[in-house]
Amino acid sequence: MKARITITLKPGVLDPQGKAIEGALHALGFGGVEGVRQGKFIEVEVAESDPARAREEIERMCKQLLANTIIENYAYELEAA
Amino acid sequence: MKARITITLKPGVLDPQGKAIEGALHALGFGGVEGVRQGKFIEVEVAESDPARAREEIERMCKQLLANTIIENYAYELEAA
Repeated sequence: MKARITITLKPGVLDPQGKAIEGALHALGFGGVEGVRQGKFIEVEVAESDPARAREEIERMCKQLLANTIIENYAYELEAA
Repeated sequence: MKARITITLKPGVLDPQGKAIEGALHALGFGGVEGVRQGKFIEVEVAESDPARAREEIERMCKQLLANTIIENYAYELEAA
């Protein structure tokens, strides 16, 4: 199965990268833009074909490696590969 | 409106970051993992409330700043803020 994982900073955590993007968008003339936040997007293929077990494996990957759960949230969608 | 933008490397473009994540997952015991690709995720709030015009504005942002369209694809979802 294929997982599409999105990792975002928790609300309230400073996001200098997002601020830099926001500043650059303003400089390019996109004046109405605000609240820019940058996160990560990771695609993973797992050999597991049972959705429940694939889900459990992805959860463990996120907690152990992909996301820093102190400051980041993660979310994912599974689809048959 | 709020846009959730996903920027991914085009197929065939080398992704050393994805490879590093894949290696780390293998080292942690996630043996069945392959095809790891890392991309970017950006959340943006635009003042525009008309979906068609918001969409057009997001397209321009992606092409001008957010994505390098030579090597990256972008996709987005819009939602009412």
